[in-house]
Amino acid sequence: MSLKDIDATILDGSVKGIPGGAAGFPLRDIGGKGWNLLREDLPLPVAVLRRSALQHNGMWMREFLALSGAVIAPHGKTTMSPQLFRQQIADGAWAMTVATVQQLRVCRESGIARIVMANQLIGRTAISYVLDEIKRDRDFDFYCLVDSVANVAQLAAAARKAAPGRPLQVLLEGGMAGGRTGCRDLAAALDVARAVKAAGPHLALRGVEGFEGLIHSDSPKDDAAAVARFLDFLGEIAVACEKDDLFAADTLILSAGGSAFYDIVVERFRRAGVKRDFLLVIRSGCYLTHDSKMYREAFDHIRERRPDIESLGGGLEPAFEVWAYVQSRPESGKAILTMGKRDVSYDVDLPVPLKWFRPGAGGANAMRGVPEGHVVTGLNDQHCHMTVPEDSPLAVGDMVGFGISHPCTTFDKWQIVPLVDDDYTVVSAIRTFF
Amino acid sequence: MSLKDIDATILDGSVKGIPGGAAGFPLRDIGGKGWNLLREDLPLPVAVLRRSALQHNGMWMREFLALSGAVIAPHGKTTMSPQLFRQQIADGAWAMTVATVQQLRVCRESGIARIVMANQLIGRTAISYVLDEIKRDRDFDFYCLVDSVANVAQLAAAARKAAPGRPLQVLLEGGMAGGRTGCRDLAAALDVARAVKAAGPHLALRGVEGFEGLIHSDSPKDDAAAVARFLDFLGEIAVACEKDDLFAADTLILSAGGSAFYDIVVERFRRAGVKRDFLLVIRSGCYLTHDSKMYREAFDHIRERRPDIESLGGGLEPAFEVWAYVQSRPESGKAILTMGKRDVSYDVDLPVPLKWFRPGAGGANAMRGVPEGHVVTGLNDQHCHMTVPEDSPLAVGDMVGFGISHPCTTFDKWQIVPLVDDDYTVVSAIRTFF
Repeated sequence: MSLKDIDATILDGSVKGIPGGAAGFPLRDIGGKGWNLLREDLPLPVAVLRRSALQHNGMWMREFLALSGAVIAPHGKTTMSPQLFRQQIADGAWAMTVATVQQLRVCRESGIARIVMANQLIGRTAISYVLDEIKRDRDFDFYCLVDSVANVAQLAAAARKAAPGRPLQVLLEGGMAGGRTGCRDLAAALDVARAVKAAGPHLALRGVEGFEGLIHSDSPKDDAAAVARFLDFLGEIAVACEKDDLFAADTLILSAGGSAFYDIVVERFRRAGVKRDFLLVIRSGCYLTHDSKMYREAFDHIRERRPDIESLGGGLEPAFEVWAYVQSRPESGKAILTMGKRDVSYDVDLPVPLKWFRPGAGGANAMRGVPEGHVVTGLNDQHCHMTVPEDSPLAVGDMVGFGISHPCTTFDKWQIVPLVDDDYTVVSAIRTFF
Repeated sequence: MSLKDIDATILDGSVKGIPGGAAGFPLRDIGGKGWNLLREDLPLPVAVLRRSALQHNGMWMREFLALSGAVIAPHGKTTMSPQLFRQQIADGAWAMTVATVQQLRVCRESGIARIVMANQLIGRTAISYVLDEIKRDRDFDFYCLVDSVANVAQLAAAARKAAPGRPLQVLLEGGMAGGRTGCRDLAAALDVARAVKAAGPHLALRGVEGFEGLIHSDSPKDDAAAVARFLDFLGEIAVACEKDDLFAADTLILSAGGSAFYDIVVERFRRAGVKRDFLLVIRSGCYLTHDSKMYREAFDHIRERRPDIESLGGGLEPAFEVWAYVQSRPESGKAILTMGKRDVSYDVDLPVPLKWFRPGAGGANAMRGVPEGHVVTGLNDQHCHMTVPEDSPLAVGDMVGFGISHPCTTFDKWQIVPLVDDDYTVVSAIRTFF
């Protein structure tokens, strides 16, 4: 299960997405096999990433950041793929973001020096690993969140004991009523900030953080207003901490931003009224693959709010597809396909049928759009239920390509994801570490 | 990613469930480390299997089968763990069941000779792998489902071409209106059966199969009646195929049974009126770990329907737990814990808080039941939202053990699951291959 040399990982038919009969071969050789999805060289279901869309999205984000004066610490939990992490760092990412210590270790083994753990650091084993790593490697630049005096006390005690030689850097988390973690009001936030300051030199308050991504109603306009209000609250915390001299001396960090509202994040933090220079860090994980529903809709709203991003060209493109066979047409209005909860996201929306193909019909030009009226109605562990029109062209053995909604919960269902070119020929593969 | 020597798999802190700072060690050594969950030796979240419950459940099912005159082909998709497959075979399982060709390959690499693919076999790559394997290994005893003349034609053409030297054995699948795969009426079923017979010697019809597990309403009594009707339909197909001499000469197989209604399956098949001897194969995958909600409730209904199973002693016990830390108490009525969609099932029910423990409080005798009023209200990718009473004892840093609902969708979130003794000391670990 080693991370050390991903290209040397031995794949065979016991790995989902690799042909059942394949004997062991190193991952690096997959692009030389000439496998093509439409020629049925891969077993279905299979998840693929369209290489051209990945490249396009990386470039788009780079341009958005240049336009916005922000940096990105992409959330690594989305893909958990060191190959993609390295591509994101090469694209200029300031850091990687993680949610857990296992994700942190994967990043560390992948050579990532700067890591934001956008979460509280809790528990003996997790805290001691982080402190040991800070002590071991002077170049390890680590940040985690605090939102309670209790947790600050736990971290301070552990840091005092471990004596890593430099402070454990924390970001003060602001939250919202009914939301997730984070201090709910300014007074609570300042209590935590003062506790951090009092725990110097073991702890250092490096900035303020929040996560606005859970805001979601039927009204995009209300959501945007709620996000702006929340960002203003984070700004208020930062201004108050600055006034009370609670921040450490180094560059201040202000960070928020999932994959739905980063345009509002960059705008509101600028207006917060913080006096000193600060680094504005967004943390989108899903921009890289984008999707065909949840983030497609979120991106439509970003476009409405920020017409100037049209100058960046094209916008984000969905890179992720999961393909399945029609295995049964048991009723005239129903198709069952070889794809289930084990293969594709179902936590936000069900998959969206995009394209279909009859094996033997030719190449990518023989793919057809799935006609209106084909709707996924449910997933079992290994099956997809789709309602189809009476005149549906789909027959047993046909292939259907689905778009997804929420990349995080499709990535975590695959240990290997082939990258394909626009003809669906496999050019390489990424490995994930969930 | 090799299956060949699972005990030699190298684990380190990049693997979920292993301490962040752990250097590489072979899986076989995990039981010698003296790690104890309650001493915070493991990072949370972590999923654990209670060894005593696993052993108990294996024995319970063996006794149920002896009482019922049935055999089991446990569905391997549940655990996808060759170590557990081997335990199930050692417990007397007749075969393993799989849903996909990747699962089949994992079983084959694990030395499993007899495999029921409780699914249609679809697509060039999948079909050719199976036929090659049938040709390569005379001891490979394979069965798959058919429910359409179209699929029978595809299989027959491939088998004719591959010439594996013996027939591809199929089971005729009956289904129900609005359900999943399977012929909806007797006429359609007989059409498929005749097509199989006509495709001899390339194909052989070995039996009849169905899956009743999707039947679920608010009325257990209605469900039981619907399951019985469906089983009677499968019996009707079998009787008609027998009458028309459509079965191959070998022992007839009648198979159904997920993890909720296997008592009805064994009862109804006996009454079907099939003249010749037959093998009655149930396929529960979840009996081994059981759970704390969905299958606990289903088992309560089995108990009501079959009071005689009380003689088997004790009934099934939940073996699966996922543990998380309280990371934040942001509001007096709310706790946020370090466990999310990446870690625990959420497709049927949200996790059920069972026990809590304050680190340093002692051993397993210091665990407490979670008081009334603690309810999981939602999961994000990496977080759990729990409503708590105003007087909840839970504080930041406390550990909470959750029961799960639907083992299949918790197993697939872990590559390694430690087995623990009743004191929560790690005694070994299983590896999964999703």
